[in-house]
Amino acid sequence: MNWSVVILAAGVGSRMRSSKPKALHQVAGKPMLSHVISAVRESTDADVTVVVQPEHIDSEEFRAAVDANTIFASQKHQLGTADAVRSAGEAALSGDRVLVLYADTPLIDPETIANLIQASSATDADICFVTADPPPVGGLGRIVRDSDDAVSKIVEEADADESTFTLTEVNSGWYAFPGEFLRESLQNVQPAPNGELYLTDLIEMAIAAGRKVVTVAAKVPIEIIGVNTREQLAFAEVELQTRYRKHWMSMGVTLIDPATTYFGSEVEIEMDVVIHPNSHIRGNSIVREGCVIGPNSIIDNTELGRGSKFLSSFADSARIGADCEVGPFSRLRPGAVLSDGVYVGNYAEIKQSTVGSGSKIGHFSYVGNSTIGGNVNIGAGTVFVNYDGSNKNHITVGDEVFIGSGSMLVAPLEIGDGALTGAGSVVTKNVEPGTTVFGVPARKQPGNGAPHHTSENSEDASHGGESHE
Amino acid sequence: MNWSVVILAAGVGSRMRSSKPKALHQVAGKPMLSHVISAVRESTDADVTVVVQPEHIDSEEFRAAVDANTIFASQKHQLGTADAVRSAGEAALSGDRVLVLYADTPLIDPETIANLIQASSATDADICFVTADPPPVGGLGRIVRDSDDAVSKIVEEADADESTFTLTEVNSGWYAFPGEFLRESLQNVQPAPNGELYLTDLIEMAIAAGRKVVTVAAKVPIEIIGVNTREQLAFAEVELQTRYRKHWMSMGVTLIDPATTYFGSEVEIEMDVVIHPNSHIRGNSIVREGCVIGPNSIIDNTELGRGSKFLSSFADSARIGADCEVGPFSRLRPGAVLSDGVYVGNYAEIKQSTVGSGSKIGHFSYVGNSTIGGNVNIGAGTVFVNYDGSNKNHITVGDEVFIGSGSMLVAPLEIGDGALTGAGSVVTKNVEPGTTVFGVPARKQPGNGAPHHTSENSEDASHGGESHE
Amino acid sequence: MNWSVVILAAGVGSRMRSSKPKALHQVAGKPMLSHVISAVRESTDADVTVVVQPEHIDSEEFRAAVDANTIFASQKHQLGTADAVRSAGEAALSGDRVLVLYADTPLIDPETIANLIQASSATDADICFVTADPPPVGGLGRIVRDSDDAVSKIVEEADADESTFTLTEVNSGWYAFPGEFLRESLQNVQPAPNGELYLTDLIEMAIAAGRKVVTVAAKVPIEIIGVNTREQLAFAEVELQTRYRKHWMSMGVTLIDPATTYFGSEVEIEMDVVIHPNSHIRGNSIVREGCVIGPNSIIDNTELGRGSKFLSSFADSARIGADCEVGPFSRLRPGAVLSDGVYVGNYAEIKQSTVGSGSKIGHFSYVGNSTIGGNVNIGAGTVFVNYDGSNKNHITVGDEVFIGSGSMLVAPLEIGDGALTGAGSVVTKNVEPGTTVFGVPARKQPGNGAPHHTSENSEDASHGGESHE
Repeated sequence: MNWSVVILAAGVGSRMRSSKPKALHQVAGKPMLSHVISAVRESTDADVTVVVQPEHIDSEEFRAAVDANTIFASQKHQLGTADAVRSAGEAALSGDRVLVLYADTPLIDPETIANLIQASSATDADICFVTADPPPVGGLGRIVRDSDDAVSKIVEEADADESTFTLTEVNSGWYAFPGEFLRESLQNVQPAPNGELYLTDLIEMAIAAGRKVVTVAAKVPIEIIGVNTREQLAFAEVELQTRYRKHWMSMGVTLIDPATTYFGSEVEIEMDVVIHPNSHIRGNSIVREGCVIGPNSIIDNTELGRGSKFLSSFADSARIGADCEVGPFSRLRPGAVLSDGVYVGNYAEIKQSTVGSGSKIGHFSYVGNSTIGGNVNIGAGTVFVNYDGSNKNHITVGDEVFIGSGSMLVAPLEIGDGALTGAGSVVTKNVEPGTTVFGVPARKQPGNGAPHHTSENSEDASHGGESHE
Repeated sequence: MNWSVVILAAGVGSRMRSSKPKALHQVAGKPMLSHVISAVRESTDADVTVVVQPEHIDSEEFRAAVDANTIFASQKHQLGTADAVRSAGEAALSGDRVLVLYADTPLIDPETIANLIQASSATDADICFVTADPPPVGGLGRIVRDSDDAVSKIVEEADADESTFTLTEVNSGWYAFPGEFLRESLQNVQPAPNGELYLTDLIEMAIAAGRKVVTVAAKVPIEIIGVNTREQLAFAEVELQTRYRKHWMSMGVTLIDPATTYFGSEVEIEMDVVIHPNSHIRGNSIVREGCVIGPNSIIDNTELGRGSKFLSSFADSARIGADCEVGPFSRLRPGAVLSDGVYVGNYAEIKQSTVGSGSKIGHFSYVGNSTIGGNVNIGAGTVFVNYDGSNKNHITVGDEVFIGSGSMLVAPLEIGDGALTGAGSVVTKNVEPGTTVFGVPARKQPGNGAPHHTSENSEDASHGGESHE
Repeated sequence: MNWSVVILAAGVGSRMRSSKPKALHQVAGKPMLSHVISAVRESTDADVTVVVQPEHIDSEEFRAAVDANTIFASQKHQLGTADAVRSAGEAALSGDRVLVLYADTPLIDPETIANLIQASSATDADICFVTADPPPVGGLGRIVRDSDDAVSKIVEEADADESTFTLTEVNSGWYAFPGEFLRESLQNVQPAPNGELYLTDLIEMAIAAGRKVVTVAAKVPIEIIGVNTREQLAFAEVELQTRYRKHWMSMGVTLIDPATTYFGSEVEIEMDVVIHPNSHIRGNSIVREGCVIGPNSIIDNTELGRGSKFLSSFADSARIGADCEVGPFSRLRPGAVLSDGVYVGNYAEIKQSTVGSGSKIGHFSYVGNSTIGGNVNIGAGTVFVNYDGSNKNHITVGDEVFIGSGSMLVAPLEIGDGALTGAGSVVTKNVEPGTTVFGVPARKQPGNGAPHHTSENSEDASHGGESHE
């Protein structure tokens, strides 16, 4: 059976008070539209047509919110939901079955979509649609059923009398139609007094024509709510975060304060991770078993290896090995790669650099565009001077190197294994393995460079900031 | 009609367990008393008399909490609310109408005050007072009405029988009186068994004398609560923050987690601003359209220009242009002024400095008492050495200047357009435009100073920390 | 009367999804087991036997969670609570009275334990046990009482009929027995159909034998909940934090946002302290009157003197005097001791150092293994170079010293009173009182060292970062 999916995203959303289209407002760091498409994708790879306002038909922001199997169609005038579906275009409506959803329902549950598709596929009903009971919010159309429990009509709240108000089953607006029925019905739907064409009318048309109408229960009533205001957006965010929090707790993650722990929808977290308050784990992050995160940490698109600790710091597109410690107040920028057992203390900024196993960057430092060996100690106040005003140049630091505090390492530069730079040095030339350099600019010191055999001055000056204890 | 306002602030507040007078405890960063005065000021510029304990009559803290049209009077002994009003003094009670309020009701709604003033102005009633229904908390006097719906008496909870407890309208204690009635009644009020004189008794006196008593409904019941404990103070804070949060969301601001977003009462925030969790916007801050703030940001008395990003940083009495980026972990102190398009990365501290358009302070640095041109790059670890132990001196940096990493710029100092300082330099003398200096202390290098034409050493050493990508 | 205490901690806790034993999962920063032991200790110093799984009998983590009067016994097979108590061993059960508790009830109230011990001591009942009404959660055994209000049986939820479900009193599982009754009964308890031996059966056995069974009401029903999932663990954390928050507010502490203020169980906080959102006070911390903490502060095992301010910083095992200011973004590590009136600004890291009264460390700096006098000014970017790759050496700085910005002080080192180091100096040799040194490495400058009498170069270069205004 050939499915197609239509997602309505042409609403003006004026109650959002925004210059951004409503469908692109985010929950859990992702546009609402993307949440709906993700939920669809758990059931089907069918082509999706997103109906937008004409001005958004070539919007890059919209394009970025969808996947490759999605196209856009525009609704010329705001003439109601039935007109919006018609605007999806012939191709979109030509399938055996058409699923109609909305871009402003980010809480939609993939299982509910699967159930709707399944219900439609398994029956010859002309309309399958999702209902929720009890109503998660006010303002939704009540489902009236006859004595056989079949849907007899849908009454909008504005038209409801007292007895209708006692009904607790409401319409989500999510439908699955046979394409043929939909195409035919869209021709015949009549404008409401305000001139708009409503999709809901198809239900009455079907019932009047004696056709079969089937309902599917929403997995949880709350999922059907539409977001029309910033307050509802905030509500949806809390609701979604609550789902994620319960999920990760059930998977063996300790959240000290679930209410201030924030997840993206795509993260992966292993057992026995402990997350302290005010922490964010986002993007495609992976957190391995036994990590301790936070308070106040933001981890984005980053892998954190087993048993690592990440305190009050930022990581964006980094990779952190096992048994590392980072923070507080440090920042791993894109391309920061820490091997196992690396220690990064406070006020360290690391980008586009690979740091070897057991190395220590304990204090305020800037480390960029570099390859650093194992068991290296980087003193406080060290700067990898990687930028000459036009290019970023590379620095290579060997194993067991000791970079004295306040050293300026001027790229391009190579510092050999076991070398040592004195505190306050400006190192502008490559340093041979096992040697000691010191001064502004740094020059090789007499002796063999091991700190305990250098001259008094250079020995004193070669000291680094304290390593991690 | 000539109004005067009396605010009672002489309560001992022993349940606060504090050496600070109760009225000065803060909600939303402002003393409770100030909230009441602000609310009054939306209706009237009338003189306000705040009745305090004798020991606070000259309190600077109290003075700072009020405006210029406010004076203080002292209540010698804790003899009840009627005595407190009497303590306001003749001048305060000489007006045509007198409004009586309390300093410990920070949730008071300006509209309710306006309604009370309006009701009193429009009638010849001897007492107008505010009631709330249902009771927002226990412990408040119940309003008993007769068959004509007129107030017949007020029953304190201690004296309430079962039927009185079913009444749901309660007394706020906020009154508007004709001055004449008030002055006369205060003479006649009789002490309660405990010796105190209660303002509430005036209602019974008025009713007994066949005078007219009118009620005004509180806009929201919760506003009438008095704060007597730290727990109630925290409750008032949450309540007030909830109001601010709803307000800003309704104005088109996205709050990712409203529960951890904190506002001052005087801020201004434009449409399409997104505020991430654990952020504070306080004082007279203005945030322009499209800004992204937080997580973990504190913005105090600061203007943030259109489209700027402010991540996990502090700003106090600063001004930030459009399209700037600040943070994480940076700090703008008073007098920091960033032009449009300035980039401030991590661990940068800026005070009393103007930074020109497009300039970059990417990494750990201290920038103080300076004027910096456009398109300047300040390398990591740079210090504006502005203090000689007794004075703060100024540094001027021209346009297109490149300050190498770890430079110490010793004030007073002028660095000309297009100049360059080498990494690790200590710059103690003015630098001419287009020249390069390097060393400790820094000396002019041969060549024309453009980094690509300097000698090998100085070229190498002139590198800055990486600019923002 | 000789008491002994048995705490059951052998549950597998598979719903935690953890490799850590359930009893060791933490709430308020302390293992659940430790909370139970602390609560016991408010009533009795009796020997405690903790029954664990055989693999944990020598666990260091378990040992660290208990006190000196606690021993461990192992339950070989998971054969039910009665078997677990029997596994405590003869010594544990030989007392006059035996108290039986569970390691997974961290909310247990010390008063309830005291009441249970008291009830048992004062009666000849064979069983005293704690009940809660209403049930704080589902799944607990209902207490059925006869017409004399005596307990007639306990019905597990699985076996409850409709009328039993209306009963609202439930069993906590906390018991006090005479040792003799317990020893005898444990011999006679019969396996349930699943083969397990249940302690609850002792109640029915006692009733059948006509023995006296007495109940004690839990102080608050919620305290009896057992933690079996991470979600319940998070619930217990919130519950416990709520208790602490209410307690400290009642003691005169202002919490701006109680929901994001986190306490350890052992802290001490004086009156008129104000704590801003997202702050943690843990360990054996003491916060003196009038301090202002946060937002975003973490204070661990640290004393904060009267009137000090601590903003967005970390302190671990530090001591801070009166009227100090710390932060934002600073970090006091173990052994940091600040005298009164010390100012620590942003990005300062201090460890194993004593800082004299009135001294200032205003900006990014690393200060370690040192003794610093009074009224010292440490310039921005200063590093105490305390590590030579193998040893940490000490630095002594006298009174009224002025350390220029970007100075590297290479340990071991002594800097005399009133001395001055120039900006960007690398100081490798002791500095005499009243002298000025400058350069890489630093050398004594001509003149007497007072900044206003040094030569032009050295005067310029001697400037520090700005001190606190």
